[in-house]
Amino acid sequence: MSSRADRLGSMSQTPDSAVRTYIEQHRTAFLDDLVEWLRIPSVSAQPDHAPDVRDSADWLATKLKETGFTTAEVWQTEGAPAVFAEWPSDDPDAPTVLVYGHHDVQPAAREDGWDSEPFEPVVRGNRLYARGAADDKGQVFFHTLGVRAHLAATGRTTPAVHLKLLIEGEEESGSPHFRALVERHAGRLAADAVIVSDTGMWSEDTPTVCTGMRGLAECEIRLSGPDQDIHSGSFGGAVPNPATAAARLVAALHDEHARVAVPGFYDGIVELTERERELFAELPFDEDQWLRTAKSHAAHGEAGYSTLERVWARPTAEVNGIGGGYQGPGSKTIIPSTAMVKLSFRLVAGQDPDHIEKAVRAWVDEHVPDGIRHQTVFGAATRPCLTPLEHPALRSVARSMGRAFGTPVRFTREGGSGPAADLQEVLDAPVLFLGISVPSDGWHAPNEKVELDLLLKGVETSAYLWGDLAEHWRDAP
Amino acid sequence: MSSRADRLGSMSQTPDSAVRTYIEQHRTAFLDDLVEWLRIPSVSAQPDHAPDVRDSADWLATKLKETGFTTAEVWQTEGAPAVFAEWPSDDPDAPTVLVYGHHDVQPAAREDGWDSEPFEPVVRGNRLYARGAADDKGQVFFHTLGVRAHLAATGRTTPAVHLKLLIEGEEESGSPHFRALVERHAGRLAADAVIVSDTGMWSEDTPTVCTGMRGLAECEIRLSGPDQDIHSGSFGGAVPNPATAAARLVAALHDEHARVAVPGFYDGIVELTERERELFAELPFDEDQWLRTAKSHAAHGEAGYSTLERVWARPTAEVNGIGGGYQGPGSKTIIPSTAMVKLSFRLVAGQDPDHIEKAVRAWVDEHVPDGIRHQTVFGAATRPCLTPLEHPALRSVARSMGRAFGTPVRFTREGGSGPAADLQEVLDAPVLFLGISVPSDGWHAPNEKVELDLLLKGVETSAYLWGDLAEHWRDAP
Repeated sequence: MSSRADRLGSMSQTPDSAVRTYIEQHRTAFLDDLVEWLRIPSVSAQPDHAPDVRDSADWLATKLKETGFTTAEVWQTEGAPAVFAEWPSDDPDAPTVLVYGHHDVQPAAREDGWDSEPFEPVVRGNRLYARGAADDKGQVFFHTLGVRAHLAATGRTTPAVHLKLLIEGEEESGSPHFRALVERHAGRLAADAVIVSDTGMWSEDTPTVCTGMRGLAECEIRLSGPDQDIHSGSFGGAVPNPATAAARLVAALHDEHARVAVPGFYDGIVELTERERELFAELPFDEDQWLRTAKSHAAHGEAGYSTLERVWARPTAEVNGIGGGYQGPGSKTIIPSTAMVKLSFRLVAGQDPDHIEKAVRAWVDEHVPDGIRHQTVFGAATRPCLTPLEHPALRSVARSMGRAFGTPVRFTREGGSGPAADLQEVLDAPVLFLGISVPSDGWHAPNEKVELDLLLKGVETSAYLWGDLAEHWRDAP
Repeated sequence: MSSRADRLGSMSQTPDSAVRTYIEQHRTAFLDDLVEWLRIPSVSAQPDHAPDVRDSADWLATKLKETGFTTAEVWQTEGAPAVFAEWPSDDPDAPTVLVYGHHDVQPAAREDGWDSEPFEPVVRGNRLYARGAADDKGQVFFHTLGVRAHLAATGRTTPAVHLKLLIEGEEESGSPHFRALVERHAGRLAADAVIVSDTGMWSEDTPTVCTGMRGLAECEIRLSGPDQDIHSGSFGGAVPNPATAAARLVAALHDEHARVAVPGFYDGIVELTERERELFAELPFDEDQWLRTAKSHAAHGEAGYSTLERVWARPTAEVNGIGGGYQGPGSKTIIPSTAMVKLSFRLVAGQDPDHIEKAVRAWVDEHVPDGIRHQTVFGAATRPCLTPLEHPALRSVARSMGRAFGTPVRFTREGGSGPAADLQEVLDAPVLFLGISVPSDGWHAPNEKVELDLLLKGVETSAYLWGDLAEHWRDAP
């Protein structure tokens, strides 16, 4: 093949201008629909929002049928429902692709610091503000206009790949029933590749494809000292204080090099290769800018690793919450009866959540002093995952994104966690990441937003991807 | 004086049977009045209870006038009001005694674990349950029936001493305006001795007189990390976490010997003498029983000291509250924006609260890591105090209590704190402690109560004390 033909690509490539025209014509209706979805407060962590999570699933299934999917079903779980949709290709030999995302969102309340109601979406400038705008409704939704643009621009009546969608409803609660759901429906979910749209990219100017996500293990450690709050004058200095015990546990969580000090925590981890460290180092990383995005005032982490390595490729332990005793105004001279700590551990490839749970339990048992009773409760864990850099589907994603953004894409990882590894494991399929969110989108934070330009680049990437995948699927690496 | 005369005491001694008869005749009305007072929720720490604290002061002033005090005034402060009352002796050479107590109470709510409403007093068995029953309304109030019994049994129309009462309204909030109040009214408060009725005794069977109280310094340390809660997946492991910083501060508060690790904390303290350690060791201390009272499951404290020494005579640091991040149900994968710690330090004679504040501030500055901003707010401090064992007034208190209880009294200290030291310092008068509460009374805890038998022994002690003091005041040691 000549270098010119290589540059232009094959004739089956979707004309880019046709895709863009179609998107431009349909963007208003697309955004109106997304806003309607974002109004549904589908907070999976809060029991009183369970009806909203169900409404969100119903809404999405209806919308996917309108989009053209031949099947769109709400799948019940023991928790919140997922949505499954399917649109087979008329080419029986086409590869099968499963798109994963989630329709539940993090808790949000105006008083947490939002400038507008989190569930009353509002456009300010070129940004759409709402809980779920980026994480993850916006990123799920770009595939609906994407597949329509793919059909319109290619003149096809069915996608170039057998397209499936699985949009779960408990991702923000640690996906407690997701693996069982995938196992139960493994036959219908079977796919040659999984496209996860629940990650971010480097920046507006530097589109990137993510090659891995960290896993997550979470626990709450509950400590009990005196059977009730007792007077710190009468008893202070002579009995163990559960708030002190909680603090000492947290203080013992990291060593002086900011490494996690739980024995066995690093067992079996896949270390970064020199090539991966080089790829990370090539990114236009500006630590001051990153700190502004992180709304933080210093970088601090495991000795011997860069900030990017720390957030993408190193396992961590963080305190998400700590509490005990009197927290109201003024003072109350008590030894508290109870204290608690919520910890989360981000895991990298090679770490097994079951092993981590055992290691943490042993470490807690070791560190809690006499006279303090304790209970450690683990939530559902999420496994880490990593995509092979040389996989042809990863190249298709990178190429499609490059066309949409008009610039070559680079490679990153994602510090957050998703149930992608369950899909990889149960379906025995490689997992690719197609996400257009940027770090300033404020996931899990007040004033979450999505950049409208990027959202439409997501649509465009999705529109190119199915043709590219069908064409290059069997390319040798 | 013969040994027989010594045993019987002098002829001016109040007949014990007359005192007891008077108390028995008036106990119902006395308890009814106390219950009425306990119904007023005079919680000084909670601004919405400010009117109740004022009502409590008004109620007390009215009741003291009914009792016979010639003066009973509500004294305003910049915070909650105090009550001052006076009842001069007809003997101009009589000593002047000032009784100190407080009419404000700790916060209390049914849902904290109370078996009945904290401000709806109820008698179960021989106990009166209500917030303030022991700390301190019950112990203030026994002096009202005490002085009436003293007069009735001796046939006097005025007390044998010039009697003054100062009952403050902000003790449970650290007495922020008390010292200024005492300084402003130093002339009217002038006394030869101060009797503090805001402490406890060993047990029902072992009446004791307290010889000292610990002081108190309190602070809240507020820590800020990211400007808002941020996603622990995106940023975890690479920025400082204020909850971790809070925990590390608390963990650094004590060394491996459970000594307070703030440099300079022990500067200048008056160490226990061997004689005092012997007196403590003679008490019938049962650590298992003490732990049951403390509702705690282990004894733990500064190495090299007994439990009694730790709670009475050693300075301490305790965490009264800690908080940061998500404390609700389930999990929230954030790095919290803020965290806080409430600490209190119990101080012993020789420790200066101003020095402690400086030492703690320097220690906090030293320990808070880069990227975490912090602010330390100190409340009003209370100085420690210690009564000379050989003071004649201390002997009068011990003798009067011995008569009421029918057994010799022993000596203790009190781990809690009160503004007694301000009285000692401003009025240049020795401070004595007359308290009848027992450790199981649940000060600051749910189900606070007072033992009715002991409350009446307090009345009886008070009835004997003024005559004994007048008689023995000028005894050489």
